Amino acid sequence: MSAKTDKDRSSAGRAEEAAVSLGRFLFDSLKREGVTEIFGVPGDYNFTLLDELERCEGMRFIGGRNELNAGYAADSYARLRGLGALITTFGVGEMSAANAVAGAYSESVPLVHIVGTPKSAAQRERRLMHHSLLDGDYEVFRRAYGEITAYTAVLTPENAAAEIPKAIRTAKEKKKPVYLAVAIDLVDRPVVVQAHGEPEPKLQRRTDPAVLEAASAHAKRLLGAAGRAVILSDLPVQRFGLGEPVQRLAEALNVPAASTMLGKGSFDEGHPNYIGVYGGEFGSEDVRSIVEEAGCLIAVGLVRSDGNLANFTAKLDTAQLIEIQPDSVRIGEALYPGIRAEEMLRALEESGFRGGELPRVRHPYDEPAGGPGDAVTAKTYLPRFQRMLKEGDVVVVETGTLAYGMSEVRLPKGAAYIHQGAWQSIGYALPAAFGAAVADPQRRIVLFTGDGALQLTVQEISSMLACGGRLILFVLNNRGYTIEKYLNVRTERQPYNDIPEWSYTRLAEAFGGEAYTARVRTNGELDAAMAEAEAQCGRRLCLIELVPEDPMDAPPYLKRKRSYLEAQEAQRAKG
Amino acid sequence: MSAKTDKDRSSAGRAEEAAVSLGRFLFDSLKREGVTEIFGVPGDYNFTLLDELERCEGMRFIGGRNELNAGYAADSYARLRGLGALITTFGVGEMSAANAVAGAYSESVPLVHIVGTPKSAAQRERRLMHHSLLDGDYEVFRRAYGEITAYTAVLTPENAAAEIPKAIRTAKEKKKPVYLAVAIDLVDRPVVVQAHGEPEPKLQRRTDPAVLEAASAHAKRLLGAAGRAVILSDLPVQRFGLGEPVQRLAEALNVPAASTMLGKGSFDEGHPNYIGVYGGEFGSEDVRSIVEEAGCLIAVGLVRSDGNLANFTAKLDTAQLIEIQPDSVRIGEALYPGIRAEEMLRALEESGFRGGELPRVRHPYDEPAGGPGDAVTAKTYLPRFQRMLKEGDVVVVETGTLAYGMSEVRLPKGAAYIHQGAWQSIGYALPAAFGAAVADPQRRIVLFTGDGALQLTVQEISSMLACGGRLILFVLNNRGYTIEKYLNVRTERQPYNDIPEWSYTRLAEAFGGEAYTARVRTNGELDAAMAEAEAQCGRRLCLIELVPEDPMDAPPYLKRKRSYLEAQEAQRAKG
Repeated sequence: MSAKTDKDRSSAGRAEEAAVSLGRFLFDSLKREGVTEIFGVPGDYNFTLLDELERCEGMRFIGGRNELNAGYAADSYARLRGLGALITTFGVGEMSAANAVAGAYSESVPLVHIVGTPKSAAQRERRLMHHSLLDGDYEVFRRAYGEITAYTAVLTPENAAAEIPKAIRTAKEKKKPVYLAVAIDLVDRPVVVQAHGEPEPKLQRRTDPAVLEAASAHAKRLLGAAGRAVILSDLPVQRFGLGEPVQRLAEALNVPAASTMLGKGSFDEGHPNYIGVYGGEFGSEDVRSIVEEAGCLIAVGLVRSDGNLANFTAKLDTAQLIEIQPDSVRIGEALYPGIRAEEMLRALEESGFRGGELPRVRHPYDEPAGGPGDAVTAKTYLPRFQRMLKEGDVVVVETGTLAYGMSEVRLPKGAAYIHQGAWQSIGYALPAAFGAAVADPQRRIVLFTGDGALQLTVQEISSMLACGGRLILFVLNNRGYTIEKYLNVRTERQPYNDIPEWSYTRLAEAFGGEAYTARVRTNGELDAAMAEAEAQCGRRLCLIELVPEDPMDAPPYLKRKRSYLEAQEAQRAKG
Repeated sequence: MSAKTDKDRSSAGRAEEAAVSLGRFLFDSLKREGVTEIFGVPGDYNFTLLDELERCEGMRFIGGRNELNAGYAADSYARLRGLGALITTFGVGEMSAANAVAGAYSESVPLVHIVGTPKSAAQRERRLMHHSLLDGDYEVFRRAYGEITAYTAVLTPENAAAEIPKAIRTAKEKKKPVYLAVAIDLVDRPVVVQAHGEPEPKLQRRTDPAVLEAASAHAKRLLGAAGRAVILSDLPVQRFGLGEPVQRLAEALNVPAASTMLGKGSFDEGHPNYIGVYGGEFGSEDVRSIVEEAGCLIAVGLVRSDGNLANFTAKLDTAQLIEIQPDSVRIGEALYPGIRAEEMLRALEESGFRGGELPRVRHPYDEPAGGPGDAVTAKTYLPRFQRMLKEGDVVVVETGTLAYGMSEVRLPKGAAYIHQGAWQSIGYALPAAFGAAVADPQRRIVLFTGDGALQLTVQEISSMLACGGRLILFVLNNRGYTIEKYLNVRTERQPYNDIPEWSYTRLAEAFGGEAYTARVRTNGELDAAMAEAEAQCGRRLCLIELVPEDPMDAPPYLKRKRSYLEAQEAQRAKG
């Protein structure tokens, strides 16, 4: 029993009932999009889904230790593979995954969340089933999910052939999570294909040539008047697959390229045109001056969020800005709607503009620092991390103290960077690293997390131990939510930001697995542990715990952010 | 700076601005209801809340290892103390707690969920802040919470004096969770008390004497005609504090009393009138026949859910039913609205009815079973658990294989029973046991959980190690989601219901603490470990891992449920 392809169905099979079940139709649709692993947690309302999935050749169910973690893993998988999927059970399961799905929305990650629900008769009769609110309302969780997804549908054999493709298309084109619920008794029912199927709605707009021409002319005038131009590469470059055209543009115009915090990794950091991450008043002074003093800034996909614009200290002059969004362009105050980014990038490539000599930029962590006997600090471990990273690595970075430092670590060619720069949910990165290992078992996954965040989702170390991936975990043990201590400038004593001290190197043992572990306090110990981890990676999980002497040790980026917040607070207290 | 009481304010201070801050007003309001500990996880939008809480004498912030766990702990605290509270941060925090809050709704637990949100100016200006969906919508999570709580409000200095009491009253009277959001910059702003404050809305209805009289007369007729009467005690008895009047009623009428699955613990199981849990076709045959063959069944707070009525196999004849709900009574087909349960119970007490001799009931686990050298099975460990439990214990039971057995373990006098019989979210019980230890550090907390469920929320063992409570944890290691294997009757091989094998006895070590641990395979080992745990409890955490030989070992209740599901499936396959 194999599914017909969409093409078969649209040409020949429309009038007849397809022999394929709803569940099979769903999984085949996902598989066609390259989804070969689906994360989740079993529950008695999703058995028929999981049973059907078991029967799908070339697809696997990947059990997470809980639904939030499974959702995080699916999010990370989607970042690497272009689409991810998650199966949970009604009520208890889906509500546990809500943070992960909302995070996918915030971070523009295409994710299909599939929920198995009670028997359709029980729902129709409003019977009080377990995992419900006991009020007979079976739409309640779907309504809640309507707030945090781009599309929701309750699947039936009658609507599945339309709703499933529509949901997947919405996820892929909007880069957002979608939600599909299906009653346990409908999963193995045959999908009904309508005799006169609706034509496929076209969500993706086409470029209007006249608008493109006007925008190109405008851009050319601005570029012509500008002495210097700079490219700023942001999050949508990754999500919409614009990395190559943006790089080609930088080369064609011979201009420097920076990325934003959210866009880190979207521009190849091994590329000679790459100058670093632009972090407003908090980031590198070199990058700041090049970006802010450029005559023309070509921003590809600018996200105007607090974290991305360094608490809005970023100074991006609208008059000098060419802002290329996936489906529109803004130049100065003029909006040009309905232009696909690829086409605008190509138009600029052909603009004839040539920048001058590329600036020579010193990346903050290019030079090694710290003797072997010295205590590890941000200043000494960050250059070591930079040196250790290899072409093609997947670098997964947790929100927190480390993230600010890692943002300025120069990535090697072809490295992927996975980080929640907008949603910033602590605990994300550990399951995300697991998801990355599932998405691409051949690549090395290097996780940088902190003790505080790790505690939230620690059980996914168990999944890592079982998955056989190539994983190296760095855990910064600074004995608490150090990032939070930095951000709360109003209070000296913050006992709530302390956390219990764990034996991080013993976790793998407790989770029934074997790992190479090291606890390091000096640079020499770190060097030795890193060498050992590089050797052992792939044979077993590697976990290196870094214990800086000063729990408040932090990279300059965070210290500058702190100073800014202190100045703001002083002003507030005065006024 | 101490808060005025409500009384002060309503008599004297209405016209003036109270000197008390919004945060202080909130915490004082909770403290007046007996909430002295608030669970949660810090985040940069709830700092002002936590700072204010630190300044409140006699109140403590209890950090959970993540928000879901903190929510579960607060739920359990609320069950024991009558009200619980949870503080999370905007977006990432609150979304992580959604399952716990929805569970409180399903299980009728009064819980106040407080969320710290971004600065009011940022929200007003729709700035794109971290932890948001990056769409400028700051009402989105509140709307989602509107689906799973009984009340939501966004607090301001102007509305706090009205909204906070209203929210707390709603939680307490409806026994449901409520949701309060407050912007980080408004927490220390003084609460504005209106010159002409609204009169307190009265949510709680009073009994109409005429209706009560009619209902009592009807009940008396039914009782008079009935040869025998039985009391069935359900969940609302616990939530609405009806335990004492129900027990008095049983004594006055001299009738046997059973409890439902959801109502377990609501009727003192050491009481001579107690006959056991009524579990329809799955439970004890003795209890079933007494309940179903009674001429009159006095159900106090009947919840007609699948789990509570043994997949609706319960046969409760409406014509013989007196159903006393918190605010109404139904007798046969007649509804008597607006009667408070206490008053109906008193009326029945004075009905003059006297039952005959109490039936002699054998409780399934009264007799010890299994020799010391024999492998542990449900048949042998359940009587041991029953014997070990002591007066006043808090018994926390996870959803799963163990729960079905524990439902028929007779509890000692004064024991509290904490279990999610309706929501059934696996992972609940471990953080709930922590919450119970915080709610009452003097009582012994005995947790019964399974390996599958424990993995979801394991990090709360860390909180237990730090809290200094008197905790004994039993972990049934049956190598997977055994309960799910029982419930899926359609598929032989269910690899998705397998889980990684952990070293449960090493968890405490990894979490940086010290525990008494034992891994037992035989009854003799279990006896020894239990004796040791009893001795050590209070000095350190005790964790006993039970490893039955057969992973599918289960109590009769679950086996009968399985047979029922198999019969259903056979019928489905035929038709």
